[in-house]
Amino acid sequence: MDIQEIRLEQLDPDKFIAEKTEEISSILGDGLAINALSGGVDSSVVTLLGHKALGDRLKTFFIDSGLMRDGEPEHIVALFKDLGVKVELFNAQQTFFGALKGRTDPEEKREAITSSFYREVFGDLVKETGAKYLLQGTNYTDIEETVAGIKRQHNILEQLGIDPEKMYGYKVIEPLIQLRKSSIRLVGKALGLPEEIYNRPPFPGPALAARVIGETTPERVETVRGATKIVEEELSESGAFQYLAILHEDRVVGIREGKRDFGLQIEVRCWESTDAVTGSPTRLPYDVLDRLAERITSEVPGVVSVTYNITKKPPSTIEAV
Amino acid sequence: MDIQEIRLEQLDPDKFIAEKTEEISSILGDGLAINALSGGVDSSVVTLLGHKALGDRLKTFFIDSGLMRDGEPEHIVALFKDLGVKVELFNAQQTFFGALKGRTDPEEKREAITSSFYREVFGDLVKETGAKYLLQGTNYTDIEETVAGIKRQHNILEQLGIDPEKMYGYKVIEPLIQLRKSSIRLVGKALGLPEEIYNRPPFPGPALAARVIGETTPERVETVRGATKIVEEELSESGAFQYLAILHEDRVVGIREGKRDFGLQIEVRCWESTDAVTGSPTRLPYDVLDRLAERITSEVPGVVSVTYNITKKPPSTIEAV
Repeated sequence: MDIQEIRLEQLDPDKFIAEKTEEISSILGDGLAINALSGGVDSSVVTLLGHKALGDRLKTFFIDSGLMRDGEPEHIVALFKDLGVKVELFNAQQTFFGALKGRTDPEEKREAITSSFYREVFGDLVKETGAKYLLQGTNYTDIEETVAGIKRQHNILEQLGIDPEKMYGYKVIEPLIQLRKSSIRLVGKALGLPEEIYNRPPFPGPALAARVIGETTPERVETVRGATKIVEEELSESGAFQYLAILHEDRVVGIREGKRDFGLQIEVRCWESTDAVTGSPTRLPYDVLDRLAERITSEVPGVVSVTYNITKKPPSTIEAV
Repeated sequence: MDIQEIRLEQLDPDKFIAEKTEEISSILGDGLAINALSGGVDSSVVTLLGHKALGDRLKTFFIDSGLMRDGEPEHIVALFKDLGVKVELFNAQQTFFGALKGRTDPEEKREAITSSFYREVFGDLVKETGAKYLLQGTNYTDIEETVAGIKRQHNILEQLGIDPEKMYGYKVIEPLIQLRKSSIRLVGKALGLPEEIYNRPPFPGPALAARVIGETTPERVETVRGATKIVEEELSESGAFQYLAILHEDRVVGIREGKRDFGLQIEVRCWESTDAVTGSPTRLPYDVLDRLAERITSEVPGVVSVTYNITKKPPSTIEAV
């Protein structure tokens, strides 16, 4: 890789912010840029960094893919409004679910989301707004895993030999590409993001599509959305690096009201990690595991079984898809 | 149900043994019977009870379906030889795998096993031996769950309206049908079975086919056999009611030697229960869960992820298939 990592101990957040805003300004001149805010740490930091550099010449969109967590689009738009940043909510649910229909292979699903995002949605938005650049929050770990061939991150283009200008009609600026997650959190804090955002557990770009094994339909996303809400409520105080719910495609036999119920299974993962490169399952108390299983099987329709991941990364990965 | 349960506190094992051997003798007269020994508690108790009643007029077979645990057929045959009971090993792997080919629905898999067992294998053995009766270890919980429609137990015939004499050409005697598992263990102890057998955790009739979600192929059985061996080694001292490994059909993303590996997932379940009617996951120490995951992912080819069941029965069942 020809990208030079800036390690946590080397980072001076204020200096980094000053350099990057300068760099973004000088690349853009008086042109327009757009970016997509997902509410995750990376895209939130890029949004504030971009607005610091460009002010109103950065148009920020929240792309509602239909794959977001419960209440997420409205919550994030309101939170950034309080920070003085106008975010436009863009409904692209039909585009995403259309592209995902019938796809079960994880890499095909990622490809469908990448293509919906960069070609369909941003291709149009760039034309409408007249922007020449897309700002995005690609980080060092994303690049590393893509280059190693572990997982194609949705936001990786050049490392896969894709020229976004030729392919989609705009250029991409990636100001966070030398940083890992823990450094990005420090930059977010220095930029004035609320702790709720800069300390947020990672959430993948393909959102809940990465939490559904097999086909990603609106119904299946609704199921995993319900389980995700419970997992986040129960584990937000755990101090863990990341926690997630995965809807399996396999069905398992259960019992409801004394009758056989061939139902759904949710897998819960909760990780101890500093950089997502390696990780261990959090040793959650069994009372917490009991409550997770009890709530998910009673509050999420169709679920009869809940499991907890006990495998380290490697050989597991953080996400299953 | 018109079968009267004998509760644990009502049971006098020696009296029960005397009554049942008397009953079996009087039904058989000087005829021959056969039975299938799987090495589980129920069929082991029936084998000793039958030999007590009939001596050499009971022919006992160990049906090697190809779905048994590692080393199980040889181990059980040798153990009963030490008890003075001759058991004939019968290789029926082709019959079972042939019937299971292409089947993914749990009830269809159970039906394929039932039919292989009662029609193909025992139909032939009855003809060859001249037996008129099959002795089997159906218990009270099997009947109850089948009548409730939760799960079709492989050994249930009459409760489903099947007349074995018309359908398969022999009659069935079920001496344990009024007892639940804990009572059967007491009878086994009184009959002189070694503790290794009478205190053995339950193992289902369809054997490892019940531990494979999706199609039951020789390769997939080999995978779950490897995981089962590790789970039994690590949990035999846990004091749990039952413990098992389940091979999922879903594939999940993992990492091997720095590269993406779209691999297999094993689910471990370990149960606290007295009667299998209700159950809770055993609160295994995390060091034990770590070791299970570490051993299964390194010793069983293709497995990149291990989960632990955290759901009670109900709404889960003990087994997943």
